[in-house]
Amino acid sequence: LEINEKVIELLSKVRAVKPLVHHITNLVTMNDCANITAAIGASPIMAFDRKEVEEIVAFSNALVINIGTIQEELVDSILLAGKKANELSIPIILDPVGIGATKLRYETVNKLINTIGFSVIRGNMSEIKTLAGFQVETKGVDSATDNFDAAEIAKRLARKLNTVIAITGKVDIVSDGQEVYSLANGHEMLTRVSGTGCMSTSLIGSYSGVTTDYLAAAIGGIITMSISGELAYKSLKDNEGVGTFKTRIFDSVYNMNGNLIRKEGKIKNE
Amino acid sequence: LEINEKVIELLSKVRAVKPLVHHITNLVTMNDCANITAAIGASPIMAFDRKEVEEIVAFSNALVINIGTIQEELVDSILLAGKKANELSIPIILDPVGIGATKLRYETVNKLINTIGFSVIRGNMSEIKTLAGFQVETKGVDSATDNFDAAEIAKRLARKLNTVIAITGKVDIVSDGQEVYSLANGHEMLTRVSGTGCMSTSLIGSYSGVTTDYLAAAIGGIITMSISGELAYKSLKDNEGVGTFKTRIFDSVYNMNGNLIRKEGKIKNE
Amino acid sequence: LEINEKVIELLSKVRAVKPLVHHITNLVTMNDCANITAAIGASPIMAFDRKEVEEIVAFSNALVINIGTIQEELVDSILLAGKKANELSIPIILDPVGIGATKLRYETVNKLINTIGFSVIRGNMSEIKTLAGFQVETKGVDSATDNFDAAEIAKRLARKLNTVIAITGKVDIVSDGQEVYSLANGHEMLTRVSGTGCMSTSLIGSYSGVTTDYLAAAIGGIITMSISGELAYKSLKDNEGVGTFKTRIFDSVYNMNGNLIRKEGKIKNE
Repeated sequence: LEINEKVIELLSKVRAVKPLVHHITNLVTMNDCANITAAIGASPIMAFDRKEVEEIVAFSNALVINIGTIQEELVDSILLAGKKANELSIPIILDPVGIGATKLRYETVNKLINTIGFSVIRGNMSEIKTLAGFQVETKGVDSATDNFDAAEIAKRLARKLNTVIAITGKVDIVSDGQEVYSLANGHEMLTRVSGTGCMSTSLIGSYSGVTTDYLAAAIGGIITMSISGELAYKSLKDNEGVGTFKTRIFDSVYNMNGNLIRKEGKIKNE
Repeated sequence: LEINEKVIELLSKVRAVKPLVHHITNLVTMNDCANITAAIGASPIMAFDRKEVEEIVAFSNALVINIGTIQEELVDSILLAGKKANELSIPIILDPVGIGATKLRYETVNKLINTIGFSVIRGNMSEIKTLAGFQVETKGVDSATDNFDAAEIAKRLARKLNTVIAITGKVDIVSDGQEVYSLANGHEMLTRVSGTGCMSTSLIGSYSGVTTDYLAAAIGGIITMSISGELAYKSLKDNEGVGTFKTRIFDSVYNMNGNLIRKEGKIKNE
Repeated sequence: LEINEKVIELLSKVRAVKPLVHHITNLVTMNDCANITAAIGASPIMAFDRKEVEEIVAFSNALVINIGTIQEELVDSILLAGKKANELSIPIILDPVGIGATKLRYETVNKLINTIGFSVIRGNMSEIKTLAGFQVETKGVDSATDNFDAAEIAKRLARKLNTVIAITGKVDIVSDGQEVYSLANGHEMLTRVSGTGCMSTSLIGSYSGVTTDYLAAAIGGIITMSISGELAYKSLKDNEGVGTFKTRIFDSVYNMNGNLIRKEGKIKNE
């Protein structure tokens, strides 16, 4: 089966199974993450108190960890939920938002990486480079532009951490350590809406909840968001902008289907 | 006065009085709850630090409690605000989100039920069954389908807890322990938007802020949301979906009026 | 240079520089604040753990403090970030939401005012009056109507606190202690959307990140929001309301430009 056909199959499965996706995520984009998860047909649940995360994750189909507004108290909850998910073979997706920006974030991700096994890690180039031990300058949570060696970085880090690595940017790179795929969809306006990265991660979580092929799940989540960004942009009329664009992203994810992925998807095996 | 005429009267009163609705609510849908409260013409205030909740609730017209992202620290705040509201005869509305999902939620609601008097409790069938002591399986925060005996459950629980019980689902059931009403409005797409249940609870809070007829207030809040869901769905054009639908819910609540409730409302005394 | 030409120049600069605006803000409107900051062309970052706020603010261009859902633990973070920002001459904007509503808020703002130097403070009339030591009645977080002496209050308080004071309402008043400007844009529907005040403050933060002329920055932030409110309202069709209106605010801020400010701006030197 070709990769885009695999993604299409997974999309149908998401809608049939409605996987429950447990999020321990940032407070800024939480609502958008819940709604994008519901839009694709999965079922979101946000819960982060240490007293309940193990119970919640135990009946979930995937766990999404996002450190965008990390607080010390949350680290314990993440570790508890993560260990339980590993025990039960529930896939965990990590979004190491701004990992290079502060010691707290860097150390938190280091602790997570050394305690929990992740199925997919998605970040922008500067985040993934920081994770890979490269020296980079981070300006906030935006993505760096220099990504000439993205494929190599993704592949090596995927092997090192035994996970799928997804680097999102102008062209997205996804690797499981063996295969490398480049995804050339998306639109620049996606960078003008807060949380499109987080939402991609939630979509990866939704796909991961119905398969063990996390390479296909990562590609599915990213391509769903980036094609939706293209469709949302195309739909804009005079005087419309990022507000309407954001609304249409949810519309497009809701209406995503096999024909669109076949027709619009720019997935390439590198 | 018939029940729908009572609701229409209350809606006018909400717009005239602009009741202040204090929310101690979940972090996922907080913004939506604030905006739906403002959309109907009431005035939202979100505050949850134990140092200020008693002062806030004291000048409010209603208190909405939602445990969707309950944290241990919040329980104290809820108890303080709840006791003060009871003292001052300010109505309290409870949304026991996911009560059956974890021990923390179950025990929290039990503590609340045993300490505070509620004017209305709104949940889906599995939540209300858990509250009523029935054995049910919960998958996340979505609603169960088996509701053949909803009227009986609502009626008995309303008597037991001396409150109005509202069970929302395909057909909503509301009872004060004497009367039982069924509400047959709504649209399936409402289940694909995060927080429509929470928003219904906020609308019940808005209606409750201007009356002591909490049966009518509960019916008003629910019918306002479910008719708005129908109107929002009808307004959708090609390629629109849950994003536009959500936006139109706020539009429809804002534009809700007596004629619409009279014409579209499917309220039945059982 | 006339004031509106200064604002237009700053707007271009925001889009060229993309200043990073660190927010320690309220949980209700956080997502909207991030998106409005991105909509105008600046770059938002929300971070509030005491362990990382000093690092975050050190590479930011402005700091926005909003106490809308203040919690005791946050006060420390605000003080740490604020002192660091002052040290590095990074402008700080304060939104003293509901300062008159509770002791916690009043004392928090007092502590902040006595520890940190602010570049701009924006509030509604009752908030600014409370800050100025006047006796006022607050109903929630909405604005009082009595503002006949707004210019005088703004001017005196600006001198006393050595800051720019912005009082938003039907007519907005901005003063640096010397000059006083009145801004007569805006639309009543802005009061029916939660967080339009917070978003104005974020826009002031965005403008402040590219200048030391905080009077122009405050006027720029407010006028951008209030003209956007007018445009958003004008764009509404039958059956649309606050939902579509909110979406169009983001569209309008994204599309804001010099011609619009020149043509629509009602800025007057008092």
